[in-house]
Amino acid sequence: MTTPGRRPGDSGTRAAILAAAKEAFAASGYAATSVRAVARAAAVDPSLVLHFFGSKDGLFEAALELPMDPAVLVQGLLATPRDGLGETLVRTFLGVWDATPGQGPMLAMLRGAVSHEDSADKLRELLLRVILRPVAVGAGAGDPDRRAALLASQLLGLAVVRYVLRVEPLASAPVEELAPLLGPTLQRYLTGPVP
Amino acid sequence: MTTPGRRPGDSGTRAAILAAAKEAFAASGYAATSVRAVARAAAVDPSLVLHFFGSKDGLFEAALELPMDPAVLVQGLLATPRDGLGETLVRTFLGVWDATPGQGPMLAMLRGAVSHEDSADKLRELLLRVILRPVAVGAGAGDPDRRAALLASQLLGLAVVRYVLRVEPLASAPVEELAPLLGPTLQRYLTGPVP
Repeated sequence: MTTPGRRPGDSGTRAAILAAAKEAFAASGYAATSVRAVARAAAVDPSLVLHFFGSKDGLFEAALELPMDPAVLVQGLLATPRDGLGETLVRTFLGVWDATPGQGPMLAMLRGAVSHEDSADKLRELLLRVILRPVAVGAGAGDPDRRAALLASQLLGLAVVRYVLRVEPLASAPVEELAPLLGPTLQRYLTGPVP
Repeated sequence: MTTPGRRPGDSGTRAAILAAAKEAFAASGYAATSVRAVARAAAVDPSLVLHFFGSKDGLFEAALELPMDPAVLVQGLLATPRDGLGETLVRTFLGVWDATPGQGPMLAMLRGAVSHEDSADKLRELLLRVILRPVAVGAGAGDPDRRAALLASQLLGLAVVRYVLRVEPLASAPVEELAPLLGPTLQRYLTGPVP
């Protein structure tokens, strides 16, 4: 490569778009950030943003730098037998947290979401719209928004108690011990009656 | 009153002790703060601290400036029929939050707890040791530490989703709608099997 600067396909272009996206999502939140605005900030055509990231969702997920791909995670959950979804969700959620030493990026997202409105938007979009709502839709019991919000309430509370407040015995309990404790709650929120 | 300065029974003495306690709990957390240290900081005898606040717990609760007395709250919960405890706990918890316009002090405590280790200690002590553990002990199904931690995980998560992330439909739902949704979860954590 002899020509310096950005060109379609350059990893430099992808990095520039990603940097612009991180800044835009952080400054304006998910809802108010458009592919067009990110493209403008990165000085590229919007079609290039879609070329690299597929969609605004893909861009958003890349900007989060998660330790896993949420789409793969959701796919895995949807492949689980319906009556085992609750426990599997506990295992998957804690698996992602426990996989990161010190829970760095996850803890940062949670702390940020509780402190700042912008980061709240980020966590809400990722956990609710990208992960839990599709799982609730897949579970097929109806009312996915309410079910996703209920699931989030138990999962986020578990993260707060285990990783932030470090309340024993939940802080030190292995996942194998927590799955049967919390699984029935998530199972009811997914497939039980929600009056 | 002709003599200036602090004397036993002075409201100024009580205020000085309370100010010293707030500073000490904020700086060192609940566990590392002693009645003796607070007395020293307020330049009074430790017996005076106990005279005004009864115990370290009483001092701690006064320093929190809660919109309700947690002891009264716990008493109310323990007077509830055992099989209605789950729903009553949801009603009581949300009642305290909803009673405060903008959820000021509660939200401040939650935000603080997630951001700073010191405030985490404060919330852990208040919610776990002062409120939920006595309720779990009163429910009489054993294993109160584990049950209290499970209760905290659902209640704190509900607060995060409803008041911080403002996830709909839970953010706008009336307490009457949420009690039967979340009550069974809390009931299981209180009196059900916790393997």
